[in-house]
Amino acid sequence: MPPSRDLEEMWRDLAPVGRSASSGGYFRQPWASAEIELREWFAEECAARGLTVETDGIGNQVAWWSPSSPSVEEGAPRLRRPEEARQRRLEGSRDQGVLTGSHLDSVLDGGAYDGPLGVASALAAIDLLRERGFEPSRPIGVSVFVEEEGSRFGRACLGSRLVTGATTWEEARELRDRDGTFLGDAVSAAGLDPSRGLLSLEGVGTFVELHVEQGRDLVDRDVAVGLASEIWPHGRWRFDFAGQANHAGTTRMEDRHDPMLTYAMTALAANKQARLAGQRATFGRVSVEPNGTNAVPSLVTAWLDARASADDTLAAMVAEISRQADERAGRDGTSLVVTPESVSGSVAFDPGLAQRLAGLGDWPVIPTQAGHDAGILSDAGIPTAMVFVRNPTGVSHSPDEHAEMADCRAGVEALADVLAELTGAPE
Amino acid sequence: MPPSRDLEEMWRDLAPVGRSASSGGYFRQPWASAEIELREWFAEECAARGLTVETDGIGNQVAWWSPSSPSVEEGAPRLRRPEEARQRRLEGSRDQGVLTGSHLDSVLDGGAYDGPLGVASALAAIDLLRERGFEPSRPIGVSVFVEEEGSRFGRACLGSRLVTGATTWEEARELRDRDGTFLGDAVSAAGLDPSRGLLSLEGVGTFVELHVEQGRDLVDRDVAVGLASEIWPHGRWRFDFAGQANHAGTTRMEDRHDPMLTYAMTALAANKQARLAGQRATFGRVSVEPNGTNAVPSLVTAWLDARASADDTLAAMVAEISRQADERAGRDGTSLVVTPESVSGSVAFDPGLAQRLAGLGDWPVIPTQAGHDAGILSDAGIPTAMVFVRNPTGVSHSPDEHAEMADCRAGVEALADVLAELTGAPE
Repeated sequence: MPPSRDLEEMWRDLAPVGRSASSGGYFRQPWASAEIELREWFAEECAARGLTVETDGIGNQVAWWSPSSPSVEEGAPRLRRPEEARQRRLEGSRDQGVLTGSHLDSVLDGGAYDGPLGVASALAAIDLLRERGFEPSRPIGVSVFVEEEGSRFGRACLGSRLVTGATTWEEARELRDRDGTFLGDAVSAAGLDPSRGLLSLEGVGTFVELHVEQGRDLVDRDVAVGLASEIWPHGRWRFDFAGQANHAGTTRMEDRHDPMLTYAMTALAANKQARLAGQRATFGRVSVEPNGTNAVPSLVTAWLDARASADDTLAAMVAEISRQADERAGRDGTSLVVTPESVSGSVAFDPGLAQRLAGLGDWPVIPTQAGHDAGILSDAGIPTAMVFVRNPTGVSHSPDEHAEMADCRAGVEALADVLAELTGAPE
Repeated sequence: MPPSRDLEEMWRDLAPVGRSASSGGYFRQPWASAEIELREWFAEECAARGLTVETDGIGNQVAWWSPSSPSVEEGAPRLRRPEEARQRRLEGSRDQGVLTGSHLDSVLDGGAYDGPLGVASALAAIDLLRERGFEPSRPIGVSVFVEEEGSRFGRACLGSRLVTGATTWEEARELRDRDGTFLGDAVSAAGLDPSRGLLSLEGVGTFVELHVEQGRDLVDRDVAVGLASEIWPHGRWRFDFAGQANHAGTTRMEDRHDPMLTYAMTALAANKQARLAGQRATFGRVSVEPNGTNAVPSLVTAWLDARASADDTLAAMVAEISRQADERAGRDGTSLVVTPESVSGSVAFDPGLAQRLAGLGDWPVIPTQAGHDAGILSDAGIPTAMVFVRNPTGVSHSPDEHAEMADCRAGVEALADVLAELTGAPE
């Protein structure tokens, strides 16, 4: 048996990769240096465990720990078109494996745990199962999906969307980052060859993603681990506020068409609507043209991130924010165009699976407002579960994100129990 | 006599330099390619008129048309320390010359007229005086000051501030642009040698700047040309709103410390205060950290451009905006630091000079809210006047900025009359 590497040891190796010396946060954007380094780290960790990593044409990675039975060995991933893989999966046998993992990319200036904790815990859970002398009856795979955060190309969960066919490569490759680089070119520049095809999910019967909680439900319940019931509907909408550039000194206030004012009121309105409804609405990204101190802007582009407990609640909230923005645009003499960039409906994780797994540790089953690759795979028809690890402050997407190592170890134990439950004996 | 070149011809040559194909606006930031090209254009235009350009160590330029009298030839510029030049100027003789000109840099995505109209009109006015057979009794200089807009290093009128000693080179060279480049390095990279020293103003008895109007006073008065009475006090203040980065989906609205909200309220408050007081307040430039769609920002930095008719009115308005921002920061759980970056008191141009020159054409004498190199030279004790050319829409700092060619020609005629008045006969 290859030697296992401790979770804390892996954590120390990951700590410096893509970290900002000034903020302490992480910049691990997809297909750039830090993320490429993490991909190599993952391959080395798998190799140290005798697992062979397969990397697909865009950088998704999987390594399978397969039982010695030759029939199951064939469950190892093959590159295949998503629709073909989906068809084969629907026809799949009881030999289908359990996939677990998360992502290694980060938001801009993000935390250490969001993503990597799920990947490192998956590896540590395999170590633990081996230490226990556990022999799976079906394959256990550890996976990493690329561009989960959408921090570079604006499309969250892009790797899993491409693998499941929710997004096509023809559409994705035309996306541009803030520097104008096409996604297709970024992938090639990272040494990948998209023509090799995408990872197949045909051997995947269940997906389990461990993730640091991004909220304080587990703190409030005083437990280290929980399971996910659902993902709130959520999306991103681009608001383009157009006005007229003019001199900031000489233009009378009443002669202006200042889109910054329309934007400012909209940001406050979004906050108020979300507060009133108990939902979420955020303007965290803004781009201004020409962005000069002494010029009234010609254009303010801002992105609304909105989430709600139900699809119609989300639609109504975004409509109300847009309505108030339009009304203010009328008063400011500006104009507004709202463009949905990615909208995901609610995801209900397989309730029977969640209940069955929750019984292993008396873990609570809680909703989340955050999107995950798990939601994409669930939408694609794969029974899916999520394991959450307590986050003492609830802070995420921030350098301040944190989890206690004791809770992370509890997460590894829980994940190992889940994997053992799912692969313990032929059904 | 060298052949004169028509204003419209010069205008056609200038039209493509640094122009954005998408917006039609200009990007002529100092010490970058378009602005270097304009510096060469100016030297060639002067050479075509038999005038020799002197370029100082940071890119300020002057060319003198001197009477044949050898005593006056000595009035040609020399590179000298500002304090020494100032002393020599205070002791100056009746042989001191008249300097006219403006700047060639632009704001980001600016108009064609703001700056270049004053430079091209100065050259055209010399052509006109020569066509009239006019022989000046004292030197007439045409000048270009660098970084008038402060679009790259944030300090408006930097070239004239350095020449007059209002800003020291030791301070200026440490300024950084948005890419982190030091001003000192940018100057060197543009092929200039700051150790050569700065332009001397010791031979300058009067400064006249022609400029497109940035407002609609002349439209309202139905005249093509006017003179300036004063420049409003104005300045730039940096507002740093600090909060806590967090997940935009999972963080409850009531748990946030979102600096975008504090900023948004402040932008609206600034607008309201300026409206109420009949003054100007603008937030046209914003920078957000980390600027990700799915993250509550950790930091929003925004620049307030504020102007008022009197120094105490300006101070009171900025204080009130800051007070409201602070109050909102308290409610948002964010914090605010306000830093003045450049604040200029009111400038009253030499009233006797304005009245004397206004009499030449029955031109109105009007105030402006825009800063100009003319204000810096006036502050330095040089009798200074400004000639404004009608702007049909009042729009400036915008691709839409415009002036009719007939009005520009009227401006050239007016400037020629002004120069003739000031250099026509020994006093």
